[in-house]
Amino acid sequence: MTDDLLDDEAPLIPDEKLGPGESYTRAFLVGEHHTNGMMNCHGGMLMAFADTAFGHAVSMRARDHYWVTIRLLTDFLSSAKLGDWVEGSGEVVGVEDDIYTVKGRLWCGERTVMTGTGIFKTVGRRPPRK
Amino acid sequence: MTDDLLDDEAPLIPDEKLGPGESYTRAFLVGEHHTNGMMNCHGGMLMAFADTAFGHAVSMRARDHYWVTIRLLTDFLSSAKLGDWVEGSGEVVGVEDDIYTVKGRLWCGERTVMTGTGIFKTVGRRPPRK
Repeated sequence: MTDDLLDDEAPLIPDEKLGPGESYTRAFLVGEHHTNGMMNCHGGMLMAFADTAFGHAVSMRARDHYWVTIRLLTDFLSSAKLGDWVEGSGEVVGVEDDIYTVKGRLWCGERTVMTGTGIFKTVGRRPPRK
Repeated sequence: MTDDLLDDEAPLIPDEKLGPGESYTRAFLVGEHHTNGMMNCHGGMLMAFADTAFGHAVSMRARDHYWVTIRLLTDFLSSAKLGDWVEGSGEVVGVEDDIYTVKGRLWCGERTVMTGTGIFKTVGRRPPRK
């Protein structure tokens, strides 16, 4: 990724929040480099984040496998603005062989930014995640 | 966006290709900053590109309006690698009031990388595109 994300002015990123069972919350802070001309977070960034935030549900379940995204459906419900923390999580709602279906959501505070569904496929083995 | 995309080593980007009627092709070159650990283009970048490549079909039709993305469905069919040119296009397949449905495709040479469908909504007026 780009060097300018590593400078001293970058905000501290809190640790991933882990809940009971397989629940978790991931987050990113909307920076200027994420925004479009309207100072809203670009939809592409929200989709990229959704891909990892939803797919992480597969990492929680299949800890010793890599995975790839097969299909992602994203519904844009409201915008995220410069300076907003966007949080996201996903839940495995179906497993068939190596295919995982995950329902997920992104939000800013009380406001839902995106809902979506991802279809992921586990691939080769990897060192188990801790 | 980031400064490192503007340096002298950046490759020349060809003009957008325009075909007959409303047809067009947009493209980007997969650079190192687009790749994941496997040197494939990150799915998030492909989705961000799909958003603009498919949505451009709305720009071609509604030249004096901005638009926003309501829903994007993306099917990942094959990967794009470092150094690949990824091309993309979309076609308006339905219009209902201010809602446009666009079917789109991304490809590298002969190989399809992604197919998808976008639902877009035109919003405020803008200076007409040329």
